[in-house]
Amino acid sequence: MITVSIIGGTGYTGVELLRILSNHPKVEIEHITSRKLDGKGITKVHTNLKGIGNLDNLIFKDVPIENIDSDFVFCATPHGVSMEIVPKLYERDIKIIDLSGDYRFENINIYEEWYNLKHTGKLRSIYGLPEIHREDIKKEKLVANPGCFPTGAILLLAPLIKEGIVEDRIIIDSKTGVSGAGINPSNTTHFPNINENILPYKLTTHRHTPEIEEELKKISNRNVKISFTPHLAPITRGILTTAHTFLNESMERDDIIGIYNSFYKKEPFIRIFCEEIPKLTGVRGTNFCDIGAFEIDRYGRLVMVSTIDNLVKGASGQGVQNMNIMAGFKETEGLLFGGLMP
Amino acid sequence: MITVSIIGGTGYTGVELLRILSNHPKVEIEHITSRKLDGKGITKVHTNLKGIGNLDNLIFKDVPIENIDSDFVFCATPHGVSMEIVPKLYERDIKIIDLSGDYRFENINIYEEWYNLKHTGKLRSIYGLPEIHREDIKKEKLVANPGCFPTGAILLLAPLIKEGIVEDRIIIDSKTGVSGAGINPSNTTHFPNINENILPYKLTTHRHTPEIEEELKKISNRNVKISFTPHLAPITRGILTTAHTFLNESMERDDIIGIYNSFYKKEPFIRIFCEEIPKLTGVRGTNFCDIGAFEIDRYGRLVMVSTIDNLVKGASGQGVQNMNIMAGFKETEGLLFGGLMP
Amino acid sequence: MITVSIIGGTGYTGVELLRILSNHPKVEIEHITSRKLDGKGITKVHTNLKGIGNLDNLIFKDVPIENIDSDFVFCATPHGVSMEIVPKLYERDIKIIDLSGDYRFENINIYEEWYNLKHTGKLRSIYGLPEIHREDIKKEKLVANPGCFPTGAILLLAPLIKEGIVEDRIIIDSKTGVSGAGINPSNTTHFPNINENILPYKLTTHRHTPEIEEELKKISNRNVKISFTPHLAPITRGILTTAHTFLNESMERDDIIGIYNSFYKKEPFIRIFCEEIPKLTGVRGTNFCDIGAFEIDRYGRLVMVSTIDNLVKGASGQGVQNMNIMAGFKETEGLLFGGLMP
Amino acid sequence: MITVSIIGGTGYTGVELLRILSNHPKVEIEHITSRKLDGKGITKVHTNLKGIGNLDNLIFKDVPIENIDSDFVFCATPHGVSMEIVPKLYERDIKIIDLSGDYRFENINIYEEWYNLKHTGKLRSIYGLPEIHREDIKKEKLVANPGCFPTGAILLLAPLIKEGIVEDRIIIDSKTGVSGAGINPSNTTHFPNINENILPYKLTTHRHTPEIEEELKKISNRNVKISFTPHLAPITRGILTTAHTFLNESMERDDIIGIYNSFYKKEPFIRIFCEEIPKLTGVRGTNFCDIGAFEIDRYGRLVMVSTIDNLVKGASGQGVQNMNIMAGFKETEGLLFGGLMP
Repeated sequence: MITVSIIGGTGYTGVELLRILSNHPKVEIEHITSRKLDGKGITKVHTNLKGIGNLDNLIFKDVPIENIDSDFVFCATPHGVSMEIVPKLYERDIKIIDLSGDYRFENINIYEEWYNLKHTGKLRSIYGLPEIHREDIKKEKLVANPGCFPTGAILLLAPLIKEGIVEDRIIIDSKTGVSGAGINPSNTTHFPNINENILPYKLTTHRHTPEIEEELKKISNRNVKISFTPHLAPITRGILTTAHTFLNESMERDDIIGIYNSFYKKEPFIRIFCEEIPKLTGVRGTNFCDIGAFEIDRYGRLVMVSTIDNLVKGASGQGVQNMNIMAGFKETEGLLFGGLMP
Repeated sequence: MITVSIIGGTGYTGVELLRILSNHPKVEIEHITSRKLDGKGITKVHTNLKGIGNLDNLIFKDVPIENIDSDFVFCATPHGVSMEIVPKLYERDIKIIDLSGDYRFENINIYEEWYNLKHTGKLRSIYGLPEIHREDIKKEKLVANPGCFPTGAILLLAPLIKEGIVEDRIIIDSKTGVSGAGINPSNTTHFPNINENILPYKLTTHRHTPEIEEELKKISNRNVKISFTPHLAPITRGILTTAHTFLNESMERDDIIGIYNSFYKKEPFIRIFCEEIPKLTGVRGTNFCDIGAFEIDRYGRLVMVSTIDNLVKGASGQGVQNMNIMAGFKETEGLLFGGLMP
Repeated sequence: MITVSIIGGTGYTGVELLRILSNHPKVEIEHITSRKLDGKGITKVHTNLKGIGNLDNLIFKDVPIENIDSDFVFCATPHGVSMEIVPKLYERDIKIIDLSGDYRFENINIYEEWYNLKHTGKLRSIYGLPEIHREDIKKEKLVANPGCFPTGAILLLAPLIKEGIVEDRIIIDSKTGVSGAGINPSNTTHFPNINENILPYKLTTHRHTPEIEEELKKISNRNVKISFTPHLAPITRGILTTAHTFLNESMERDDIIGIYNSFYKKEPFIRIFCEEIPKLTGVRGTNFCDIGAFEIDRYGRLVMVSTIDNLVKGASGQGVQNMNIMAGFKETEGLLFGGLMP
Repeated sequence: MITVSIIGGTGYTGVELLRILSNHPKVEIEHITSRKLDGKGITKVHTNLKGIGNLDNLIFKDVPIENIDSDFVFCATPHGVSMEIVPKLYERDIKIIDLSGDYRFENINIYEEWYNLKHTGKLRSIYGLPEIHREDIKKEKLVANPGCFPTGAILLLAPLIKEGIVEDRIIIDSKTGVSGAGINPSNTTHFPNINENILPYKLTTHRHTPEIEEELKKISNRNVKISFTPHLAPITRGILTTAHTFLNESMERDDIIGIYNSFYKKEPFIRIFCEEIPKLTGVRGTNFCDIGAFEIDRYGRLVMVSTIDNLVKGASGQGVQNMNIMAGFKETEGLLFGGLMP
């Protein structure tokens, strides 16, 4: 049994952490902090969780970071805020899973350029994608939980990059549900603006681009040129990533499938689809990343598709997966459930 | 540990039973029958369940009823089909949860009139709404699992009816997600026909009407006149029921809330909302029935609202709740999880 | 040819007026005012109208009311703002179509109670529902354009009320698209909050209630008790109104249909549906009000359904219809087009 | 005034032709044929068109092709059916606009390979994309109306291809509304299957691929390698096309915009967006093709976006545009209206 606190429990990743952790047999939730909702009952705000475990007794509190001494802390805080909080926890040897982008980059210059923020200083951390960095995650006390788009994209491309069978120039065309834009209303998320639309945005400037690139470079030890374009779709949850790559040499579909089956052989949260195309509702509410398509066209273009739930494998679920690894629990503890389909 | 079989595992209630039961610590799934999909892997069809428990090893089989001797059998079969199958299981003392309408009615004439079918003959059974009939469910071997609309409507109205504080004439205006129409495509469920629409249907002739009426009469020992109109909404899951009733005497909102809190005091799956209006996403994927509104207008009309997930509390989840009761398990076993919101 | 100005051209009713008027052969648009967008090109904001007529040359201006002397002025201004503006136009004999609620009520006390505003003073005006008040609209210079819910509800109920064949107690359960909530984002209209939901709101307190009631009383010269409950549906445009009434005497469906066909015999914008149930997409983008259902249940409840596009017949289209009547044009001028189905 | 008949009036393109033509001042609709609906009133089936012009008097008829002698005939018939019908009309000098793929290809072998059909024989025809082939359309009597995806893709890429400033390898990632799948229900279009999903399909094998390729080759006189992947989105109408191309040489965004403004300078149905990204609701119900984005990333990838209404500019509206050209009418006659936004 471990104690866990959540800093910033009011956003979508915060409530999703509560939904998942309240179902986890080895976790006791200690604090959920919120300045704005200080004193309010958790399930008065997140009414979907009413009646679950002891959540009805939990209350949002504006707890000073200094007073938090849980075994694990999740920082469900925005970019820029995490780097103010994390160092204070870090020095007290608390295990930290940070859901922001603040500690994801080896190269701080890239962070500062794409996030347009001055960084408070690097800490020893590991990029929390267990399928790639599991052994290192076991050893670290600060995990930088991956971004939602990078999770879908890196898992989709890693085997190809590792094998070196595709050209370095890769096009990623992603489609995300609106929960990815967060809990706060805006013009873009106003129902009549997104309903019956599909909106490309930050077509060449999304800050998940360098994150994908940096991680793929680590895998291949070569430069990879990622051209990434996201689209907002009239869907609540999920990211479907379509990757367009070009094969270096002539290969058969079955060869590619073989590579993926081998690469992800023992992974409990990766499902390889040889026949059907993965669907967002198949991963809805789950920690799975489904991978499929493996289609090759007349010009050697290989099209691959992955699906994740952006709030689970793309954020909070992956955070709990990292916690399980760091705590020495079974990696799937509290995380294995089927997708809400339909 | 009990063994369970599902007859008719291809529809939405079948897959939902699998999703829930695969998460249940005391259940071993034995057979899932299907004539159409005989020989196909369960998770080849229901890809959302891939990688969960041992579901990847289960195969649809066209098993003769005679060969099924699990402790429990769920009949996820259509109206008319259940009454051919159930008697064969019944005589062998297998515990049965029938999801069709075939054994829901005390009065077979009402069934035959509204379903336009000749019944094969009544069997001793109990209407499987645990919040009303828990003690009897414990004793029976055949449970008629309630319809989706009746579940939301009866739970919404039972306290009022029991107290006798509203007029006998009640208007129920329900809004259901499209999964309620089943897994087979039709003109009505063709995306361009239901998207951007909300379709009233069977406005005065839906066969859940007499089911609601019969159950409410049992509670009050008086005639209740239910005027029920369903609408199909561009939503996948959930039923929101708006009940318009008229108070017999002047009452305050708090009195009504008090009645509900008292009536449902110990119920693990009923959540009373005093402030917010219940939302479908709050119960999505769960076995909860949320009840709220309690608003009274200038003319003594009391408006009440309930929400359920039509496939869980409105079908398969409630079936598992009944199984838990019949098997002597904790009633919430394998059934307590928060709603998938957003 | 007449000149027309629009005060408040930034909201949904403003852009919808532009969409309709730009297609009207006898209208020249003079001013579109906006404080916020002063100096911006109309079609830079409302990009859907780019390339239509001379709209690319029109610019939002913060024109003082005193400088406006078009033949007709549409006030697409919020409640409370109209009553500051309208008197200034009124005294200069400009013909005014006010889309707010400020001049809809005979009884100012009712307005002040439900809108929680002090009124600046009544002016001679007419409630702009042409199917009921056409002859008076011809004579007036200030038309109070009806609310969206009242348009659908009054047209749906008027024939029944006039004939006096239903009880005075009427339940109206309406379902509206999200554009009815206006162009400004809010928690309610945040996509993940309304998608996959249907939200009852102001269940007994919506201010369109007394508007419906007052108009129906005028028709019947009797008190009518309107119990009105709106729901927000995950749809952009349209209002579907379900009315639950109780017949005073036994009648046949065909009798009711006969009453409606007769009442609306010559109306170009009312379509009576005897077979199909009206659909929102059938009226989408149009000025039609479709009426249907006419179903009677075992207890003498008569269920009726109407559909309108809330932004057209429920607001801007009806405004143009009123303008046509006041200007002596053909009533359907610029307003007859088929619904955007699918 | 010309007379027009529609062969195959029951699908989405048929009803859309009726919606548009009923608004056209110079067209008299003569026949709408349907085997299945022979004898049924047009507006009994397409209820959205009730009350428009004289459509209430038109009746579906199973008219033999021999008996049709309108000035213009639209074949809204499926691939394979058109090539049985068109020759019979062609020999009688009727002007024909064929909405199928049967006469779109110069090279019949390509057609036979991708459509898996034996062709009945080529006829002199012109590919009906007015922005590219206007002068030739004027002279021909058989127009092959373009496919929906090709319309959006060719108009998006033509200026780049003509200028020869991008590499020959082009990736087109398209997102279409479900009306593109036609009026008949299927598993794919079943609401619970497409709602909350976005489905890639025929990822490397869609038959619009060679159509795009053939037309772009005509423009450039060079080989162009089109890699095309469509996705089905939970939207009713519209196609958003995202093109990923690579510039041959370093260029600025403004240079590209200049090329487009110049190429489409006089086109009434092409709107170039320099600031906003085009939205599907901006073209909904219209004959516009909106083009925008013009963004260049670190690796010289140029991302371009176009939006059309698949049933209007992508089918029936473009058909009427072709008819206007062939008949010597103003090209925009009956076709200029603003998008239904929101």
